[in-house]
Amino acid sequence: MSFTTVTWDRDAVVLIDQTRLPLEESYVRLEQAEEVAVAIETMVVRGAPAIGVTAALGIALGLYRYNQQLDGPLTPFFETICQRMARTRPTAVNLFWAIDRMRASFSRCKDQGNAAVSATILAEALLIAKEDEEACRRLGDHGATLFTTPTTILTHCNAGGLATAGYGTALGVIRSAYGAGMVTRVFADETRPWLQGARLTAWELHKDGIPVTLIADTMAGHLMAQGEIGCVVVGADRIAANGDTANKIGTYQLAIMAKEHGIPFYIAAPLSTVDMATDDGSAIPIEERSPLEVTHIRSIPIAPPGVEVRNPSFDVTPARYIHAIITEGGIARPPFKQSLMQLMGADHE
Amino acid sequence: MSFTTVTWDRDAVVLIDQTRLPLEESYVRLEQAEEVAVAIETMVVRGAPAIGVTAALGIALGLYRYNQQLDGPLTPFFETICQRMARTRPTAVNLFWAIDRMRASFSRCKDQGNAAVSATILAEALLIAKEDEEACRRLGDHGATLFTTPTTILTHCNAGGLATAGYGTALGVIRSAYGAGMVTRVFADETRPWLQGARLTAWELHKDGIPVTLIADTMAGHLMAQGEIGCVVVGADRIAANGDTANKIGTYQLAIMAKEHGIPFYIAAPLSTVDMATDDGSAIPIEERSPLEVTHIRSIPIAPPGVEVRNPSFDVTPARYIHAIITEGGIARPPFKQSLMQLMGADHE
Repeated sequence: MSFTTVTWDRDAVVLIDQTRLPLEESYVRLEQAEEVAVAIETMVVRGAPAIGVTAALGIALGLYRYNQQLDGPLTPFFETICQRMARTRPTAVNLFWAIDRMRASFSRCKDQGNAAVSATILAEALLIAKEDEEACRRLGDHGATLFTTPTTILTHCNAGGLATAGYGTALGVIRSAYGAGMVTRVFADETRPWLQGARLTAWELHKDGIPVTLIADTMAGHLMAQGEIGCVVVGADRIAANGDTANKIGTYQLAIMAKEHGIPFYIAAPLSTVDMATDDGSAIPIEERSPLEVTHIRSIPIAPPGVEVRNPSFDVTPARYIHAIITEGGIARPPFKQSLMQLMGADHE
Repeated sequence: MSFTTVTWDRDAVVLIDQTRLPLEESYVRLEQAEEVAVAIETMVVRGAPAIGVTAALGIALGLYRYNQQLDGPLTPFFETICQRMARTRPTAVNLFWAIDRMRASFSRCKDQGNAAVSATILAEALLIAKEDEEACRRLGDHGATLFTTPTTILTHCNAGGLATAGYGTALGVIRSAYGAGMVTRVFADETRPWLQGARLTAWELHKDGIPVTLIADTMAGHLMAQGEIGCVVVGADRIAANGDTANKIGTYQLAIMAKEHGIPFYIAAPLSTVDMATDDGSAIPIEERSPLEVTHIRSIPIAPPGVEVRNPSFDVTPARYIHAIITEGGIARPPFKQSLMQLMGADHE
């Protein structure tokens, strides 16, 4: 991939600015943890795994700056910064998973002196990033085994290199399967309201030379009826223990359409997206974002002033619509309660 | 309604400019038939019944101007202008229905002298407009009888006063049912790519004081799963003899979702939308429009330059998903082949 989504550079977190893509490939250099939190809230960075990695690096950045300023007790500050990161977005569980991992690392090293703690915490955040990219590559390769004849794939939102530390989840599967000669074309839903498909997925695949066709979210059913879609592969923001999956709004209706047309529907996500503490999808909090995302596009109004708006940012696809969940540990098949537990167990050994 | 979609004013066709709504309520005055044809092509006016009415008035306008210029034979010119109107858009059958009606009127009066022919043809076009509005009101009142308890209604695209000579088809049903106290809220899909829902339906209902909530096209399935949608009512561009219905792209997937959630799915259209010469949906031509509608929103690019795009403007909902087709002649129920034929027969008596 010819871009970097989230990196640590000397004393700052550097993000590709996803609000400016695809018209401008620009990077923002964030030197304070608060800037990192705001970048997550305003979707300069988005995508469940990328949010987790960015929050971890933001926590490390906070400790680094704190140590520059004073030699005081780290623990209260560390906890404050973890809580700040946890308030940025509610649905993607990778955020809370990454914060928990930073907390565990902190509690192991917290008595080693501030400089050493800061270094250890940064190393942990960088390890999370490295592991995320490696997980995506393994996940992609597992996913590619699902394809035995060349086919077209529909994806929604952006579960690509831009949504992870690199390579992507759904787009990781697509990259690996394309490399194996098994993808003839990708259809990218534009994914209103935030247009992740039009702005990010189309950009990312087009840049990599993978044949991509952009469609509006209204067109998927028609193309399925015409026999133009071979399967659907999407990412996830949180997978409950029973396999119910929260992902970008619009995913659920694609799953319904896929079922109606007898088309396989796959989720691709690292195991950090699986939340065994959440029994099923009904317990997953769904973020509602600003009405302005619906009433305006790039600051241009497209709706009458004062009209009411709903803007749920995610929906839950019940496990019964999902043919397989592709992870770095292997492919989970229904019943997911058992198959996910097996993969999670193997992951923890 | 506090606006007029299409009217004849002295020696011109006046259209509300639907490309500028909702930010600006402006009217264009078209003094040549060619301008009317271009207005249909560029969607200054859109919506199947409104297209038919506008084409009829455009033909009358052409004859009127012709008579101002020379006293020559009318028939070749009349046929040329009919063919020009017929080339504007392929899917909405109301266009061809209106042109056929103008042809029939012309062949009845063509020997009466040019001035009389021109007056007769204008009278026929104005009659088509008047009948369309009356049909919408009857259709709306028939549709309202479907509602026995107050409910929420989801609609797609704009099948409103803006899509007809007035009152609307799907929105006609909503207006009548709202008047009867049976509509608690309307959800309007924004309807990408052209945003008829956000720009036109939300504007029209908001202006009339009918509670409307705008959603992105990705959100309908989620709201159905939450139990927030009581039924779906949409318009139509062409209804085949068996009930298969072409309507704005995205309609088909709403029908699938409605079925999955056990929610009634209704079509509302005047009988001029029923095309008994088309056996089923597979024979309905589907217009593909410019990729720019998908890659740009109000001239602002939202996709990477050079990306491939599909832009089918309509899709076909098979009759098996449709609970009822609401017309000015009454409500057709499955099997539609029989019920539509009955209504069409009654219409011709």
